[in-house]
Amino acid sequence: MNNKIEWIALDWGTTHFRAWAMGAGGQVLDQVKSDQGMGKLERDEFETVFLEHVEKWLVGRNSPVSAFACGMVGAKQGWIEAKYIETPCAPPRNEQLVQAPLSDPRVQVFIVPGLSQHKPADVMRGEETQIAGFLASMPTFDGVACMPGTHSKWVTISKGVVKHFTTFMTGEMFGLLAKKSVLRHSVGGRGWDNAAFIGGVKLAMDTPELVAQELFSIRPQTMLHDLPANEARARLSGLLVGAELRATEHLWSSRDVCIIGDPKLSEHYNKALEFYNCQATIADGDMMTLGGLHAVALSAMEQAS
Amino acid sequence: MNNKIEWIALDWGTTHFRAWAMGAGGQVLDQVKSDQGMGKLERDEFETVFLEHVEKWLVGRNSPVSAFACGMVGAKQGWIEAKYIETPCAPPRNEQLVQAPLSDPRVQVFIVPGLSQHKPADVMRGEETQIAGFLASMPTFDGVACMPGTHSKWVTISKGVVKHFTTFMTGEMFGLLAKKSVLRHSVGGRGWDNAAFIGGVKLAMDTPELVAQELFSIRPQTMLHDLPANEARARLSGLLVGAELRATEHLWSSRDVCIIGDPKLSEHYNKALEFYNCQATIADGDMMTLGGLHAVALSAMEQAS
Repeated sequence: MNNKIEWIALDWGTTHFRAWAMGAGGQVLDQVKSDQGMGKLERDEFETVFLEHVEKWLVGRNSPVSAFACGMVGAKQGWIEAKYIETPCAPPRNEQLVQAPLSDPRVQVFIVPGLSQHKPADVMRGEETQIAGFLASMPTFDGVACMPGTHSKWVTISKGVVKHFTTFMTGEMFGLLAKKSVLRHSVGGRGWDNAAFIGGVKLAMDTPELVAQELFSIRPQTMLHDLPANEARARLSGLLVGAELRATEHLWSSRDVCIIGDPKLSEHYNKALEFYNCQATIADGDMMTLGGLHAVALSAMEQAS
Repeated sequence: MNNKIEWIALDWGTTHFRAWAMGAGGQVLDQVKSDQGMGKLERDEFETVFLEHVEKWLVGRNSPVSAFACGMVGAKQGWIEAKYIETPCAPPRNEQLVQAPLSDPRVQVFIVPGLSQHKPADVMRGEETQIAGFLASMPTFDGVACMPGTHSKWVTISKGVVKHFTTFMTGEMFGLLAKKSVLRHSVGGRGWDNAAFIGGVKLAMDTPELVAQELFSIRPQTMLHDLPANEARARLSGLLVGAELRATEHLWSSRDVCIIGDPKLSEHYNKALEFYNCQATIADGDMMTLGGLHAVALSAMEQAS
């Protein structure tokens, strides 16, 4: 099999490592997942961890292979810094990739840089590759990409160029409040209630100034009125997503919207947007990552041949 | 000394235990602090922990002594549940206290119940005692008590009665964001910058719908524009305090305000209120706790004699 591997795709974030052995035409031949994110590693450990995971793909090959990587692996504290490219700009091209130091002659690693915005100050790492993948499939898209996640991004795209973006801590905030705050006693489990979610969204949209007090209110509603955990959980999410939607209303109310992310989370955002008569399309985040890495890999291989 | 101890004051919260040996006229003869909060204890451990801390005050006494306690020690998961009293109501009186089970004949423990509000659902435990202390010194106060802390409370008080209250997760949110989120890389240390704090307050007051995005923005401002940690820290606090002030503007803009809490935190709230031409008075939170326990202790001792 290994001689069929044309390139390796690598999504290496703060908390996860994922690699795919890619065949002709973007076919996935094999994949590896691990929790050895860059957040746990010192600079001199990246090569070892990378090789441990992809060694099985390197055995018995006739020629070296290139890997294309995105995510926090290119941060200042990562394997090697791939400096931000400033917006407005197109997603990073092959010649903007940064080669990681690697002593093993069987493989080369190229890291996709993130994007920065001078004012208001903002940064992304990883999402630029999803945008590249999205634009590879929808090159004429003119609108806004909603990218829900730990740090949700709203990215204005026109004529293949990232014009502007804004980040929200929605996912991280949800995780902290649901797992580490007093609300953890109210929102246990994995349950969901769509009406409670939309209720939270609506409150934040109508009265964003009340979100701070409505967050705590979930706890006494459990204690005094037996609010079920699935409703509490969905309401917490709705309040946070609603605050994000309120701040981005000028974007989604007047432009085409594509949601790019984890399918389940994207569906929640879609439900909220539908409630406000916004018809979004949905693209799978992992597919877009692979698509973006495929685009730079193709262009690199064309250049080399 | 021990025969001079007239009663024991006890503030036993989720994360702390504090006890004071009280002499005549509210004089503090001795005190103990520990981090053995009720959050760490099983129900059958409370007596042991309590006695360990106050044993030195019980030795050689001629008669039993009473302890008066407030805080989460009276919660469902505490030593014994002291059920909430529903507002509107005056702060808890002696006859509403709940006696904790205790096998040692040298001491009795009475727990002050918290207050609840049916709609909007809300609860407090500990603050009701501070309010009792505050009303003991300012019985005719008519206005709103601002009680900053882990869970800040805004309490409307008139004619000695708690009319209404609202809770914000401001302190807990600050702690989670400053210590556990991506912002921890930006807001390190203990520094402060008042202009950055007021800037955050103002942003939240003017545009509460933008708080969610401004929170994340602190991180890229550090990365791209070298925002100093003390400014980042104060801005984070300002955004959260500002969101709280925006939601309570109808209270502090039209009524007398007294801030009851930790002196340093109270000063920040005061600075923010002053910026909006609201002149608040400040009362020390610990003094108000002692004052409130003193009020129930006095009334209990009068009744007993």
